[in-house]
Amino acid sequence: MSDADAVSETVTRRFPAEALHAQVVAVLTAWGFARQHAEASAHVMVEADLNGIDSHGLAMLLYYEGLVQARALNPAPKIKVLRESPATALLDGGGGLGHGVSVQAIELACDKAQAVGVGAVAVRKSDHFGAAGVYAARAAARGMVSLITSNGFTRCVVPAGGARPMFSTNPIAFGAPRRTEPPMMFDIATSTASIGKINLAWLAGKQIPPGWVVDGAGRPVTDPAQARVIIYDTGEGGLTPLGGTPEMSAHKGYGICTMIEVLSALLSGATAAPLQTGREAGTKGTDTGHFFLALNPDAFRPLADFHDDMDRLIDALRATPPADPGQPVLVPGDIEWRTYSRRSRSGIPLPTRLLDELWNLCERADAEFLLQSDTL
Amino acid sequence: MSDADAVSETVTRRFPAEALHAQVVAVLTAWGFARQHAEASAHVMVEADLNGIDSHGLAMLLYYEGLVQARALNPAPKIKVLRESPATALLDGGGGLGHGVSVQAIELACDKAQAVGVGAVAVRKSDHFGAAGVYAARAAARGMVSLITSNGFTRCVVPAGGARPMFSTNPIAFGAPRRTEPPMMFDIATSTASIGKINLAWLAGKQIPPGWVVDGAGRPVTDPAQARVIIYDTGEGGLTPLGGTPEMSAHKGYGICTMIEVLSALLSGATAAPLQTGREAGTKGTDTGHFFLALNPDAFRPLADFHDDMDRLIDALRATPPADPGQPVLVPGDIEWRTYSRRSRSGIPLPTRLLDELWNLCERADAEFLLQSDTL
Repeated sequence: MSDADAVSETVTRRFPAEALHAQVVAVLTAWGFARQHAEASAHVMVEADLNGIDSHGLAMLLYYEGLVQARALNPAPKIKVLRESPATALLDGGGGLGHGVSVQAIELACDKAQAVGVGAVAVRKSDHFGAAGVYAARAAARGMVSLITSNGFTRCVVPAGGARPMFSTNPIAFGAPRRTEPPMMFDIATSTASIGKINLAWLAGKQIPPGWVVDGAGRPVTDPAQARVIIYDTGEGGLTPLGGTPEMSAHKGYGICTMIEVLSALLSGATAAPLQTGREAGTKGTDTGHFFLALNPDAFRPLADFHDDMDRLIDALRATPPADPGQPVLVPGDIEWRTYSRRSRSGIPLPTRLLDELWNLCERADAEFLLQSDTL
Repeated sequence: MSDADAVSETVTRRFPAEALHAQVVAVLTAWGFARQHAEASAHVMVEADLNGIDSHGLAMLLYYEGLVQARALNPAPKIKVLRESPATALLDGGGGLGHGVSVQAIELACDKAQAVGVGAVAVRKSDHFGAAGVYAARAAARGMVSLITSNGFTRCVVPAGGARPMFSTNPIAFGAPRRTEPPMMFDIATSTASIGKINLAWLAGKQIPPGWVVDGAGRPVTDPAQARVIIYDTGEGGLTPLGGTPEMSAHKGYGICTMIEVLSALLSGATAAPLQTGREAGTKGTDTGHFFLALNPDAFRPLADFHDDMDRLIDALRATPPADPGQPVLVPGDIEWRTYSRRSRSGIPLPTRLLDELWNLCERADAEFLLQSDTL
């Protein structure tokens, strides 16, 4: 759920959220992003860092730089509402990064859920939208149950029984609001493991478990160096869908991954990953798709009853006798919220290696480097 | 995806769908079910058998008999629409079996999606609704993308890190329509394995893989006899959520399982499994919850474009080079549709052991036994 533990083992320096926000805005505007889009991206990225979803926080700038250099992103996209009804909408992200259009999409889905009980908003011509859970938390803050999905351009997940990657790690996030407590929420890649976890094993010199990655003959790969070659270079084999192996029901993860592709790309008219000819071709810009569903509990039953039941459900789950007496059972969102509270008070830890990389990136972008020293 | 292979290894006799339908109606009406509810249940159960979801077909009568004997089911429930808006509704199943109210719910969700692009219908005071995929196929036949979930009363799935079962196997089904071809669809329990698979391993004298079942200390169980004791008797340990183990991301399956509980029970006001005091108490009847979402692709983009992209997506997935050259990559729903086509032509195979059990059941119910001999 969180890379916080991995980060805590490395040398880090801490910064307040505001400093990270300013740094992202400085870089994106140096790249030519319109101010409003830079602000939206910074908001979503720093929220990811606050939640402990470090893989989708400030570190994403290193990936986005590649997109900017490839001219794959429109720095000042015009977001358009292509279709709209009282309960649905289709947005066109204009070929920019996904954060700005996604903030607009989840707010629109919540507006519709507020008005008619449910809102379903599809997005096309977008790109990476960061951590899906940030949008689920935003919907929960407006009192809405939400479901958020995205497809992606980087094909790295094989269908069950397949030798070639056809999907990105197709994330799904879910959020459910509470009366006063932080929401129940999760944000998961629908592959068994993330590329980040494989990189961590590689850096630590550890084997990966059979079932995370298969080669082009469907055989389990346990050497993380070989796994990285498979994922980044060969185009054969890849990450497994959740479940991992046939006997552990990889067909279920494959089904969920396919569902996310349909919701994100087929409803919106974005390019489905199995059909894309590759960003590498450089001819068509980006066309990632997202899907945002918001449900207003108040449309179904009295809100107080829903909130009471949420409290009781979460209390019951937390009271489950744990398998390990030292490890209480958690509810989805607990780790993120604890990290959020701690980092809001004590700052966001950034590994010194990441700070070095960001310094170099700022040099290349001709942007001011704002994370010189711990400012807490 | 299907128990068809397991059944084919046993001695079976084949019957046309109509014979199974008549048998279910005969039993349910002998139990005092109102005709319309008996017909709805028979329809959904026989559709499950046609799809090869044998665990949710005629064999369910043996389970439902226990509910009837415990007077847990209302044989002639009055289904009520408690709340309704143009895009949402809440139905009360009246304490009957879940099939009738669920057919009404998915049709209502499709009506709303036809009218305003999306329909979300929650159901409370229901019971077992059979195979979720039957409702997804029904929505697809009306041209709708659908998502269907249910909670359940039989607690058998442990939260990640938990020693006690808190959830049923919380199924989720998804369907996406096509122009003329059968729909893309899946119908999965969100546990790693089903109880049915454990029973099959037990009957076959085989070990089960570590990761399907844990004991009360979170240790993997590989002896199917011990697994059955854990699931049916002890109340400690249970089935794992999809993923199975911490390193294979059981927290992801736990998140999905929790999401299904919120959608099915919290939105509708049904009794969440972690909060129920047990059907065994016999005092409150049944209060299972379901959730039905229908999305009209035509609300988002021209229908012809959606259909074209569905065809292209499915062709691309089927063309994925397979890990095993003898095993082409399938699309979710392929196995069910092939089974459906075959069984529609050649009949539904019923194991002789099941036929013996049904004969005894009919004796107890004072219902006519209609599956005397192969009628094909």
